[in-house]
Amino acid sequence: MKNKVKISFGSTALFDLSKKLLKRKTSSIFILVDSNTKKLCLSDFISQTKFTNYELIEMHAGEEFKNIKTCEMIWHKLTERGADRNSILINLGGGVVCDLGGFVACTFKRGIDFYNIPTTLLSMVDASVGGKTGIDLGSLKNQIGIFKEPKEVIIDSNWLKTLQQEEIRSGFAEMLKHGLIASASYWDKLKKINLLSISNLSKHILPSINIKKRIVLKDYKEKNLRKILNFGHTFGHAIESYFLETKDKNRLLHGEAISIGMILEAYISTQVCGFPYDKALDIKNTFNKYFPKVMFKSKEKHSIISLLSHDKKNDRGKINFVLLEDISKPVIDINVGKKLLDNAFDFYES
Amino acid sequence: MKNKVKISFGSTALFDLSKKLLKRKTSSIFILVDSNTKKLCLSDFISQTKFTNYELIEMHAGEEFKNIKTCEMIWHKLTERGADRNSILINLGGGVVCDLGGFVACTFKRGIDFYNIPTTLLSMVDASVGGKTGIDLGSLKNQIGIFKEPKEVIIDSNWLKTLQQEEIRSGFAEMLKHGLIASASYWDKLKKINLLSISNLSKHILPSINIKKRIVLKDYKEKNLRKILNFGHTFGHAIESYFLETKDKNRLLHGEAISIGMILEAYISTQVCGFPYDKALDIKNTFNKYFPKVMFKSKEKHSIISLLSHDKKNDRGKINFVLLEDISKPVIDINVGKKLLDNAFDFYES
Repeated sequence: MKNKVKISFGSTALFDLSKKLLKRKTSSIFILVDSNTKKLCLSDFISQTKFTNYELIEMHAGEEFKNIKTCEMIWHKLTERGADRNSILINLGGGVVCDLGGFVACTFKRGIDFYNIPTTLLSMVDASVGGKTGIDLGSLKNQIGIFKEPKEVIIDSNWLKTLQQEEIRSGFAEMLKHGLIASASYWDKLKKINLLSISNLSKHILPSINIKKRIVLKDYKEKNLRKILNFGHTFGHAIESYFLETKDKNRLLHGEAISIGMILEAYISTQVCGFPYDKALDIKNTFNKYFPKVMFKSKEKHSIISLLSHDKKNDRGKINFVLLEDISKPVIDINVGKKLLDNAFDFYES
Repeated sequence: MKNKVKISFGSTALFDLSKKLLKRKTSSIFILVDSNTKKLCLSDFISQTKFTNYELIEMHAGEEFKNIKTCEMIWHKLTERGADRNSILINLGGGVVCDLGGFVACTFKRGIDFYNIPTTLLSMVDASVGGKTGIDLGSLKNQIGIFKEPKEVIIDSNWLKTLQQEEIRSGFAEMLKHGLIASASYWDKLKKINLLSISNLSKHILPSINIKKRIVLKDYKEKNLRKILNFGHTFGHAIESYFLETKDKNRLLHGEAISIGMILEAYISTQVCGFPYDKALDIKNTFNKYFPKVMFKSKEKHSIISLLSHDKKNDRGKINFVLLEDISKPVIDINVGKKLLDNAFDFYES
């Protein structure tokens, strides 16, 4: 099982990439961007890597384009422009570009090498580690994909300057999650961060990546331990799917959805695993400090609860949750009755 | 690297399958058939395995349905019927069903286990070993796919009775190829076979599988040695693609296309690698004994030659051939000039 990923940091790593590719048997370089990273990141990327010969492929930006149609478009472009098994694909963008680009690369001609250059906070702290490539099927997130590591991930916090505040927030939610499932002291530090200071935030990226790496290395295929990374995600994915399905233009970003998921699941933890109620309140207050509150209609809550039954982590129709016994003490594979799910929304909204 | 596959033989292996699945943590069983195997094989399969609880998924029969649209249909069916990560997919059919079903399984929720029950001679001797899952992209064969072994392959030569004569022939071409690239004595034995006798033919299946297994185990990802399995396939795939593209209803089956490919490439071998001319004639005469001759218009030859440039085995735009120095002495990665490609057609047609 290939489960180690090479992660490099900073703009010098970008310059080294060109040298590395020259040494390898690379026949051609393809760069995948979306409409945002084409505008905001591409010229910096080219001037730092000093690439002269490359082919650009552009996809639309946004989760709604993380589908098989976009893959087909890219497979065709690679084919038309003569990509062979020694070509490589560089994904320059956020989670959608990296996840989808990775899936395209490892299925094109049964697999070409790919490199991820995450440009959002979310993709730096989450998608960069763990080898999860994938796309959505209809409104079901990451329903199709495979496990495969990129050849290298290069993380440069300079890209964070290109982001809107809500995108910073979205990534920050995953960092908070890493604290909640693995380190109370990291959680305590993060609670005090001012998200307007990129340089301050940047210092906390590496610990987040290390927490995820440690977990993933122990359980690559998500048989057990790795499941703890799904804290907040059972509800989070259902909420995200719901907003994607209803095509709401003001829909939530991933991190915003899982921040709600973590509050809901923190409450459930108090009822099922003895998680202290005051800590659930602390979680709720911390997330409410950074994230806008969403009010759900009762019809919406029912739709979200019924979407839970499609979660990839389910087994034989039962809905599985990751819950907390305490901060940094997660427990996996907990089945929860429907009544508690409704109550969790009451806690969130109170 | 997972590169071993469990292959079992005969109808008792089918019965054992049910027992094995009961012991595993299998949550649900899905069986993929095409319209042919639904009619000709399914009821036998069910009565032999004694399956009681299973979900059936049916796809159209034929290479033209080996595409992403069929995958989407199956991914949606799996989703609607509640497949989870502990569900398994059984592919009951020929190469198209096994290749496509394998691809669907290893990309659904990032991978569920699958079993192949090849029902054609071609899929028994070829697709059953080597972990090549995949689909076509437009007219380009197997352009999209990944390497992954099924959990088990069960080969039962009784299915051969359900086949038309041209399907037997198509699989027989791959067996002849195994002789040409790896064993002169096997080639000599096969030359004398009467294809109308299934029981006689059946005895020669295992040696063919063993030849392929030996090659694949040494070079799973087709870096070097495995390429020899592509003898006849550079031209063969281009011819197959051409007929697929023109939607000719009388188009060739895979084995028929590669039988022409092997004659063309045997001739090129005489010009480039010192392959004895009388042996090239022997190859031509042997294939002509079993396969109907196809006459190509000169426009068709040009289209086929231009399709060669899309072959997956190419590197930096050069067309790579596998050729023969002698029977069972293949050489890989030989670049061939365009003039010789034309001449090869003259040899085939003479």
